[in-house]
Amino acid sequence: MRAKEFDCLNYEVDSGVATITLNRPDKLNAMTPLMFREFVEALDLVDTDDDVRAVIVTGAGKGFCAGADLTPTGDSSPFAADEIPKREDGTTDYSHESVRDGGGFITLRLYQCKKPVIAAINGACVGAGASMIVAMDIRLASEKAKFGYVFARRGIVPESASAWFLPQIVGRAQALEWCMTGRVFTAGEALAGGLVRSIHPADELLQAARELAMEIIENTAPVSVALTRHMLWRLPSADHPMAAHQIDSRGVFSRSKSTDAAEGVSSFLEKRAPQYPNAVSTDMPDFFPWWEEPDYQ
Amino acid sequence: MRAKEFDCLNYEVDSGVATITLNRPDKLNAMTPLMFREFVEALDLVDTDDDVRAVIVTGAGKGFCAGADLTPTGDSSPFAADEIPKREDGTTDYSHESVRDGGGFITLRLYQCKKPVIAAINGACVGAGASMIVAMDIRLASEKAKFGYVFARRGIVPESASAWFLPQIVGRAQALEWCMTGRVFTAGEALAGGLVRSIHPADELLQAARELAMEIIENTAPVSVALTRHMLWRLPSADHPMAAHQIDSRGVFSRSKSTDAAEGVSSFLEKRAPQYPNAVSTDMPDFFPWWEEPDYQ
Amino acid sequence: MRAKEFDCLNYEVDSGVATITLNRPDKLNAMTPLMFREFVEALDLVDTDDDVRAVIVTGAGKGFCAGADLTPTGDSSPFAADEIPKREDGTTDYSHESVRDGGGFITLRLYQCKKPVIAAINGACVGAGASMIVAMDIRLASEKAKFGYVFARRGIVPESASAWFLPQIVGRAQALEWCMTGRVFTAGEALAGGLVRSIHPADELLQAARELAMEIIENTAPVSVALTRHMLWRLPSADHPMAAHQIDSRGVFSRSKSTDAAEGVSSFLEKRAPQYPNAVSTDMPDFFPWWEEPDYQ
Repeated sequence: MRAKEFDCLNYEVDSGVATITLNRPDKLNAMTPLMFREFVEALDLVDTDDDVRAVIVTGAGKGFCAGADLTPTGDSSPFAADEIPKREDGTTDYSHESVRDGGGFITLRLYQCKKPVIAAINGACVGAGASMIVAMDIRLASEKAKFGYVFARRGIVPESASAWFLPQIVGRAQALEWCMTGRVFTAGEALAGGLVRSIHPADELLQAARELAMEIIENTAPVSVALTRHMLWRLPSADHPMAAHQIDSRGVFSRSKSTDAAEGVSSFLEKRAPQYPNAVSTDMPDFFPWWEEPDYQ
Repeated sequence: MRAKEFDCLNYEVDSGVATITLNRPDKLNAMTPLMFREFVEALDLVDTDDDVRAVIVTGAGKGFCAGADLTPTGDSSPFAADEIPKREDGTTDYSHESVRDGGGFITLRLYQCKKPVIAAINGACVGAGASMIVAMDIRLASEKAKFGYVFARRGIVPESASAWFLPQIVGRAQALEWCMTGRVFTAGEALAGGLVRSIHPADELLQAARELAMEIIENTAPVSVALTRHMLWRLPSADHPMAAHQIDSRGVFSRSKSTDAAEGVSSFLEKRAPQYPNAVSTDMPDFFPWWEEPDYQ
Repeated sequence: MRAKEFDCLNYEVDSGVATITLNRPDKLNAMTPLMFREFVEALDLVDTDDDVRAVIVTGAGKGFCAGADLTPTGDSSPFAADEIPKREDGTTDYSHESVRDGGGFITLRLYQCKKPVIAAINGACVGAGASMIVAMDIRLASEKAKFGYVFARRGIVPESASAWFLPQIVGRAQALEWCMTGRVFTAGEALAGGLVRSIHPADELLQAARELAMEIIENTAPVSVALTRHMLWRLPSADHPMAAHQIDSRGVFSRSKSTDAAEGVSSFLEKRAPQYPNAVSTDMPDFFPWWEEPDYQ
């Protein structure tokens, strides 16, 4: 068991699973700029540590994440934006490239992650909290979870790039209803709408998330999972399946020559648990990444 | 209560809700070129009237909309197209830019709308009627509703840009089955396939649609809803979430400085109904629209 | 009844339905390079034969398709790739354009097909078998079917362009869970996840697939179905519904002038079965194809 201390979150690694626990329980884990930065830092640890095979994100105490902290924190408020550039005519230039929503730092960093990320939503999951989970790969909810894309009820708009992520997960129709009403809804409505894949008693949630993480860890090759994650997030946006064929041709041939593939076939034929030799830090194929990632920071 | 008289539809505004009722009940509200034009005109009223916060579209009498009227109407038939240009060799040039499906005028105009549009599908919803609803935001059905993407049963093809809209709502697989069989199906099949979000007894349908409209009107900021609507329809088509981050950064910062946001936070903390001061006609941020809209007419 | 003999599959045409039966039952119909080529050849027959109105794909014996055959076959293995080009520095160039996954030949050829393709999944449907079905239009499963996107459990990655096709059918979230766990799952989980549209007793599966094929054949115009198929697969990837409006305007006007449309309206008004005169081989409109298809071979 390893851990790193952060101010706003806990980071622990156990049996290949890094658990990131949002940790401002007296504020229902409302997000601050410091928490944004620490979350990104935790994901940097995840991606560089080969002992981490999967990530679970959850919240300390009763809530998962109540959104951006609207109370003064000593730290600069996410909405303060005191240094937004002015145009020559004196008006504020909200379109300036330096104007960046802090919640987007988390979701755009999640988009680059090389490990599977599982949300274990233990309680209130609202605003930036609700945006964060749709950039993760798999979502499990406690019976006690509540969700809300409440932006239109606060006079603002969907943030953290959720206008892109949410419809990819639940479709445009469900996204429109949730975001245009700003309704707070139950885990049951989240399940029916495709936002979460299962609901669990509160005291069984983390165990269910861990079992799913272990299903990945015990059976799959880390390099394959990293490639798969990026193929499934990125390639469907192409306007022709040829884009996938070009990448997967490289992927299938290069990986089929790997010692991972030999172990995959051997362990399958011998009906035993696999021990994949390749690591994400050293063995990603040279065509990865096949895209040019825009800089979000 | 305000109203405007049209030939083919009723337009009434009450408590912030504009109800557009297709009104050719003896023809099951089959569409004519005049109805296309009047529908566009009604949406122009919707977008310029700040007292309209949401739109309900329904049909007079037993049907919702039976599609394009195939009988002569005195008005030019939608399929007459007597003036399609000829090429130099005398063949008809169906690819000429002047060749425009009239149903597309409605769905492409809906795509530009700044207010939420709710379909209250009271009866037969076939052909161009079935195409129209997938360009709306939320769909409720009466138990008596029937649906049909029947184009292949008439020797034509999906129209009104439904080949784009329908898969965004129900996915490619369901769209393919409905459009390749041309089957007429029940509200139950529509619900199972994700085309409608709920089914209601016939005499409770309009009330359910109004309650949903009021949920939006009573809780959300008009400018936020207008921005949200366009973000959720347009941004998921981008090939990277960065496109959403760029827009929502501008949106979050500019709107968080607005009097709407102040009212949103105050009313939330004070647990009272909000009274948002900003209006769509005057207070949309200067980065809206962030896209260049192609001209459909 | 007509048939053509292939080594690895059966091809039979009856009442307008071509049934392609993968036929290596002792190998659970595992795929070989020869089977890839024969499948493409069978689809060439489908597209050029106007007597074929729909296609059913199923498997001989207990399985549907167990994926790529990992045992030596005499034929070159799909993963052998002995002739992958080298770079000047001696390293293998997996990004060379000649490196092409054989499974992609099937799914990219399916993408070009002009007839509806129905998968009747009778048993194990794993790896390349599971990839193949998501490039088909409609999927029915036997109670005995099992599915698995097992690539990460073999040290490789999703192939056959399934990283594009699978999320179009089931969404990114479900695709990520199935491909990152590599789990083998039941027909029930496939139905819940949107991968198949219905489950049938094993001995009723083919009949159910035939009834669906006959629903298309008996009611719809072949040219309309061919156009519809390509409109629904291709146009949703456009970033604006205008792309659909431009194509469907041509489609609606050109087809509404056809003898098919006259028969469609007449048979509807006369309440009799239609007899559409136009054929796919001779009567596709001159704007089809409206795209430039990349060469996959």
